[in-house]
Amino acid sequence: MTSIAVIGAGAVGGYYGAMLARAGHDVRFLLRRDLDAVRARGLDVRSYLGDFHLPHVTAAASPAGLGAVDWVVCSLKATALDEARALIEPCVGPGTRVLALMNGLGIEERFAEWLEPHRVFGGMAFVGINRGEPGVIHHLAYGRVTIGHLLNDAAEIEGLRALLASGGIDVAVAPNLRWARWEKLCWNVPFNGLSVACGGVGTHAIIKDPVLRATAGRVMREVVAVANADLTALGSEVQLDEEQVVAAMFAQTDSIGDYRTSMALDYVSGRPLEVEAIHGEVARRAETLGVAAPSLATLYAIVRAADARVRGEMPVIEPGEAS
Amino acid sequence: MTSIAVIGAGAVGGYYGAMLARAGHDVRFLLRRDLDAVRARGLDVRSYLGDFHLPHVTAAASPAGLGAVDWVVCSLKATALDEARALIEPCVGPGTRVLALMNGLGIEERFAEWLEPHRVFGGMAFVGINRGEPGVIHHLAYGRVTIGHLLNDAAEIEGLRALLASGGIDVAVAPNLRWARWEKLCWNVPFNGLSVACGGVGTHAIIKDPVLRATAGRVMREVVAVANADLTALGSEVQLDEEQVVAAMFAQTDSIGDYRTSMALDYVSGRPLEVEAIHGEVARRAETLGVAAPSLATLYAIVRAADARVRGEMPVIEPGEAS
Repeated sequence: MTSIAVIGAGAVGGYYGAMLARAGHDVRFLLRRDLDAVRARGLDVRSYLGDFHLPHVTAAASPAGLGAVDWVVCSLKATALDEARALIEPCVGPGTRVLALMNGLGIEERFAEWLEPHRVFGGMAFVGINRGEPGVIHHLAYGRVTIGHLLNDAAEIEGLRALLASGGIDVAVAPNLRWARWEKLCWNVPFNGLSVACGGVGTHAIIKDPVLRATAGRVMREVVAVANADLTALGSEVQLDEEQVVAAMFAQTDSIGDYRTSMALDYVSGRPLEVEAIHGEVARRAETLGVAAPSLATLYAIVRAADARVRGEMPVIEPGEAS
Repeated sequence: MTSIAVIGAGAVGGYYGAMLARAGHDVRFLLRRDLDAVRARGLDVRSYLGDFHLPHVTAAASPAGLGAVDWVVCSLKATALDEARALIEPCVGPGTRVLALMNGLGIEERFAEWLEPHRVFGGMAFVGINRGEPGVIHHLAYGRVTIGHLLNDAAEIEGLRALLASGGIDVAVAPNLRWARWEKLCWNVPFNGLSVACGGVGTHAIIKDPVLRATAGRVMREVVAVANADLTALGSEVQLDEEQVVAAMFAQTDSIGDYRTSMALDYVSGRPLEVEAIHGEVARRAETLGVAAPSLATLYAIVRAADARVRGEMPVIEPGEAS
C-alpha cells in the first residue's frame, strides 16, 4: 500500500485518485468545493468503463491535514502553478516523489526549482472527464496517462508505472518526458485554443466545420514543428512524426463525441485560462527556436485576450454603447 | 446640381450624403431606422471638422420612392451585397453611375454582373464615424475617400472626383481600383478581425497590447503579400509597399483614439458580420494565388465562427452546463 496525496482534486485528480484508492492505496485528497460532500457521501465515479463508489475517502481542506506521503499527484490547474510549492511541501517527506499531472510545458522544471529533479515526474492524461455535482466525476472517454521522469531514469519510471497500473490505470511510458509533453500539446494547443476563441464551444463545432478543422490542423502542424526543434535542441533521440500525430489526434477527436475542453469550460465559467502554460509557452519556445508558427501565435494572442476578459482586464464594448 | 441616391444610409452613407446635400446637390436617402426622425428633424452631423444640420432632407423607405438619379452611392453593409441590385435598380436610369462605398473585395465585380462596367465605381472611406440617435451622425476622425473606376478610365474617375470634391469631401484617386481595395483591407482585415476575435473591443485593446499588436502586424503583412500577388496577376503597374503600408496603418491607428470598428459594433449588437467580404475573400484569394497567409486564415476561421454565433448557428456551452 502506497500513500498518495492528490493536490488539486478536480476531475482529473479526483478520477485517478479514486482509481488508486479503489485498488487499496492510502489516497488522501485535498479538496475545496467538494470537501463536505465527499466526507459525507464519499466519491462517485461514473465511468464508461463501469461506475464505482468509494464510501470512505480521506480528505482535508489543507495539505498539512494530509501529512507526508510516498507520492504526491499534483493535478492543479496550470494557472495555479505559482501556488503549487506551498500546497505540495506539507506532504513532502524525505522520500516523497511528485507526479505533475498538469497541462502545459515547463511544469516539471518549475517543480525542480525546489525539489530534487530525480523526485519529479510528469504525466499527461488523455481522458474525457468532467466534474458533476460535488463528489461526482463523469468519465466519458479514454483514460490513458502517459508518464515520464524529469531525468528519464528508467528505474524511477518503472516505479510510477507499476503504481498507476496497480490502480487499473491505462499507463504508457513516454520515450522521454518532453516528447510526451509535446504530444499532449499537439492536441491542447489547437483544440483548447479554438474552443475558447470560438466563444466556448465543444469539439464538434471545430471538427465539423471545414475552415476551423483546417485551422486546427495548421496549428497542430506548427506545434509539431516547434516540438521537433525543441526535442532536437535537447538532444532527444525521438521526434514527433507529423503525419502520424495529425492523423491520430483527429481520429481520436472524431471518435470522442462533442467533447468540452477544460479551457472552454473554464472560459464559459469565468475562470482564468491555462493559456500561458499551454499557448504562451509554445509561442515563446517557437520564437526562441526560430520556428515559424504564425497560426499558433495568432491563436495565442486571441486566447490570451479571452483570458484577459475573464480576469476583467479587457472590457468589451457594451451593446448599449454600440449603434 | 447632381441627383444622388444614397442606398444604405448608415453612418458612412449618411455622412457623405449629407456633405453633398449641404453643397446643394439633390441627395435622396433610402432610410429605414432613421426615416421618421430625419423627415421630422432633418440630419445632424457632429463632426470634428465642424457640426452642421440639414433641416430638409429628401428620404424614402423604398428605392422606388427616390426615382432615377445621376449617381447612386451604395453604402450598404457587405452582408447585404445580395440585396444590392434590387435596392439600386429602381434608381438607375440610362446614364446612372454607381459608387460602391462598401467594405470588402470583389464588390464592383458583383455590380458589373448587372450594370455596364463603365458605370461602376468603388470608394474606400477611411473615416472614424458612428451613428448616434436617429438622424445624428458622429464624425470622429479622418474622412478621406479613395476612389477608383472598375475599368480605370481616367475621365470617368475625374467626374466622380469633381462631384465628391464639390461636397467638400477629401477625395483621393487610387492608382487603380483593386489597389485601393487592397489598401483598405490592410487595415480592415487585422483590426476589424481582432476587434471581434477579442470579444468586441476598441482599437486600443489591440494596439496597446504587445501580443495583439504584433498579431495585427503579422496579419497585415500577409494581406500585403496576397494583395501584391493579386495585383501582379491582374497586370497592375502598382504594388503595395509593405513597410510603408504597415507604418502608415499603425500611425493612423495610434492617432485615432480608441476606435470601435464597424465589425466590433456589429458583433456586440448581434448583427451579421462582413467577414466573408473582408476576411473570406482575402483568404480565398490567398489560396487561389498560392500565397501563405496562415495568421489571416486563423483569424478568418475565428471571426467566421463569431459570425456563426451572431447568426445563431454556433451555440456555445452555457455556463450552467459547465463544471
